[in-house]
Amino acid sequence: MYSVREVMESRSLAVIGASRDPLKLGSLLLKGLKDTGFQGEIAGVNPRGGEVYGVRLYRSLEEIPFPVELAVILVPPKVVASTLAECASKGVKGVVISSEGFAETGEQGRQYQEEVHAILRSTGIRGFGPNTLGVVNTDTGLATSYFVNEHILKPGSIGVAAQSGIFAGALLRYLTSYKLLRISKVLGLGNKVDVDESDALSYLTDDEQTRIVAMYLEDIRDGRRFVEVAREAVNRKPVLLLKGGRTSAGAQATASHTASMAVDDKVLDGALHQTGVLRMGSIEELIATLIGFQCTPLPLGNRIALVTYSGAQAIMSIDAATEGGLRLADFSEETQARLAGVIATPSKRGNPVDIFPDMMAHGFEKTASEILGALLEDEGVHGIFFISFATPEIEPYRPLVEVIQERPTKPVFFSLLGVREDVETCRVFLEENRIPFYLFPEMAVQVFRHMWRYAQTVNGSLRATWVQD
Amino acid sequence: MYSVREVMESRSLAVIGASRDPLKLGSLLLKGLKDTGFQGEIAGVNPRGGEVYGVRLYRSLEEIPFPVELAVILVPPKVVASTLAECASKGVKGVVISSEGFAETGEQGRQYQEEVHAILRSTGIRGFGPNTLGVVNTDTGLATSYFVNEHILKPGSIGVAAQSGIFAGALLRYLTSYKLLRISKVLGLGNKVDVDESDALSYLTDDEQTRIVAMYLEDIRDGRRFVEVAREAVNRKPVLLLKGGRTSAGAQATASHTASMAVDDKVLDGALHQTGVLRMGSIEELIATLIGFQCTPLPLGNRIALVTYSGAQAIMSIDAATEGGLRLADFSEETQARLAGVIATPSKRGNPVDIFPDMMAHGFEKTASEILGALLEDEGVHGIFFISFATPEIEPYRPLVEVIQERPTKPVFFSLLGVREDVETCRVFLEENRIPFYLFPEMAVQVFRHMWRYAQTVNGSLRATWVQD
Repeated sequence: MYSVREVMESRSLAVIGASRDPLKLGSLLLKGLKDTGFQGEIAGVNPRGGEVYGVRLYRSLEEIPFPVELAVILVPPKVVASTLAECASKGVKGVVISSEGFAETGEQGRQYQEEVHAILRSTGIRGFGPNTLGVVNTDTGLATSYFVNEHILKPGSIGVAAQSGIFAGALLRYLTSYKLLRISKVLGLGNKVDVDESDALSYLTDDEQTRIVAMYLEDIRDGRRFVEVAREAVNRKPVLLLKGGRTSAGAQATASHTASMAVDDKVLDGALHQTGVLRMGSIEELIATLIGFQCTPLPLGNRIALVTYSGAQAIMSIDAATEGGLRLADFSEETQARLAGVIATPSKRGNPVDIFPDMMAHGFEKTASEILGALLEDEGVHGIFFISFATPEIEPYRPLVEVIQERPTKPVFFSLLGVREDVETCRVFLEENRIPFYLFPEMAVQVFRHMWRYAQTVNGSLRATWVQD
Repeated sequence: MYSVREVMESRSLAVIGASRDPLKLGSLLLKGLKDTGFQGEIAGVNPRGGEVYGVRLYRSLEEIPFPVELAVILVPPKVVASTLAECASKGVKGVVISSEGFAETGEQGRQYQEEVHAILRSTGIRGFGPNTLGVVNTDTGLATSYFVNEHILKPGSIGVAAQSGIFAGALLRYLTSYKLLRISKVLGLGNKVDVDESDALSYLTDDEQTRIVAMYLEDIRDGRRFVEVAREAVNRKPVLLLKGGRTSAGAQATASHTASMAVDDKVLDGALHQTGVLRMGSIEELIATLIGFQCTPLPLGNRIALVTYSGAQAIMSIDAATEGGLRLADFSEETQARLAGVIATPSKRGNPVDIFPDMMAHGFEKTASEILGALLEDEGVHGIFFISFATPEIEPYRPLVEVIQERPTKPVFFSLLGVREDVETCRVFLEENRIPFYLFPEMAVQVFRHMWRYAQTVNGSLRATWVQD
């Protein structure tokens, strides 16, 4: 049996069921491959031969004059098994079965899928899918999906495994619109006839390019194994899991989507919690958490400080923080003295620190920089939430960014509210400086919670700083 | 005692404590007033006289040669009471006390606030604040805050009451970046020495310009009265409430913010739920729900349909819908026949409807328009969630928008994922056509839940269509 790694590192590829019609899936895929700059050899297979997007189509796999390591299969379900036999003769190591019409559609499809399963087992070929858009390796430019664009292919450190190919494509496009979020590998799992969530996670755990793992799953085939693999993975990198099919109606829909089997979500949740896998409540939370892990150090404790112009946003953040087991930091005497130097009214020097009156009196930059500096140097503060206005100019934030970059010791999250164009201007500037921005501080709090939980999981000694109420 | 309405309709205004320094709050406020195009008379009061931003500063209120209906007070706490006495002599109907340093700061401030309370009661002057940025009336161009910009002042139908002035300012700036969200009135409540949440809501209930009410509160002073006022309000327009200080740590922070008194959040939540007030979980949810109410008719039931290119997003939406008491619609025979006409694979014609394969075969516009048309005409479907890709061009969505606009019978929500610039292009186009867009369909589901709950509250007969599991 070949390893997932061998397949992911394929240097040659054939698309079986390639189309000569430039608007069909079977040709768009070849166009995608050309566009990615994949350095290996590419061929198409079509009984009538020809060429599309500059790729030669051969009448059969056998006719291809070079060895094929990876095959993408687009032919109808009933001929997939025989196609796999040809793949075996050709020495193919892995296949991406993009065709639909397998176990997700009913009994006949289930039979097809069992045949596929049997032949994969007997030949040792590793199979992704069916019903998947396949794999991406940004290290080699390999991409078996026409959803891939130049941003998705810029090499980075986020490894993705997803049970839904099309969703993964759209999500990757959105995700990589953030300059901070760059991909290492993508594994599309589909119906998981062979490569499943445990194989994918195990591969991403060992993959050196991957520093953080994001998964979307609709079911977990072998819970016991996944828990084992997840425990090992979490020891080496954060694992973020988004799971569809929490409810019975949702789980029912997964059956016709990726032929998933319902599991009791509470049981699963409990088991996964033990491993330290971080479960995401939404796509938005997944993206937010990726940004947090990509940009800031792990927190050393659960005591946070808020700096704000607006009591209201601070209060909503404190609600979210408290509900999530975080606590407001008590400032050191030194910090209190430093705050007293810039904040005239004693009641504004607490936590949250209210910068508004002194900002009006002494200027935003001076006030905010001094406060941030003091909090960054206070070891009793483990995370800082800076909640302020969005301004049309980024100049006021430049000195703050310098203060933070000089002391990269703890997470600092920005939330700036105002006119939408101003918000976007500020966000882009902060992003360029690797400072996480979340429109609403409640999301920043949620990200901090995940990061703090991960910090506790990977380093038992950190637990000492956790203070129980 | 003057009414809140009389104060909100003031046609003349004085800023007491106006500054001649063009960078101080007391002059920025006058600049703001000039910028709003307020048609009434404006004057400033400053012991040294002068002029700033073209507004004449008088040495005393008495010297102002015209009657003053509304006064904005910026003087220090200890002289506010005597200033109010002068206001009474001048015939002022209402005051916005912007000064800080009252009950939110401790014992001395509390005394000042009690003095203010007493003099307001004895003179019949209505007071907003202390510790507030005041009021906006887009109908007359009245705005007592320098946070106001041209978008906030474009007249609309959303009435806002907020206990935190600065937050309200930033929020209004963000909110009105959405063309769909336009304001009628804003009432900043601050420490609520006089005008409280019940007065504000009662005023907004009677205000004909206001079709929907959005409130941010940190406490509720008179729970019994608020419940009464809210019940009446909900009968006439939706009331959306965001409340800070849910947790004890959050509530503690409200004390130093707006001198709020902690209440048991569960008790409050129960009482408010009875009235039909819609409680918002976050600022984001508040904005999303405002968009829903502004753009779509109230749903006639809780049965939803999903149209999707991606099983994954549909499944996460179904999870959210099911957890929120919604159900998947069963399609009528006519709908099933119409879907069969455009969707080749039977398993893709269920709910969620999977348009992907047929979209690839027959084109997106044709497939999507026909499906949308069928679902819009199926009376067993009460809301439609259209989940697809964001494209760089809006052309594919044009025919869909026409189909929806021809049948404005039920909420239709769009969620399009992809490259961020494409998402924004699609969002702006849909917004221009008054079709709600939410990046992630889970938020659309949440908005639908609020709208369905409101529909049930205002029309008992609608309950008949609610189907229990």
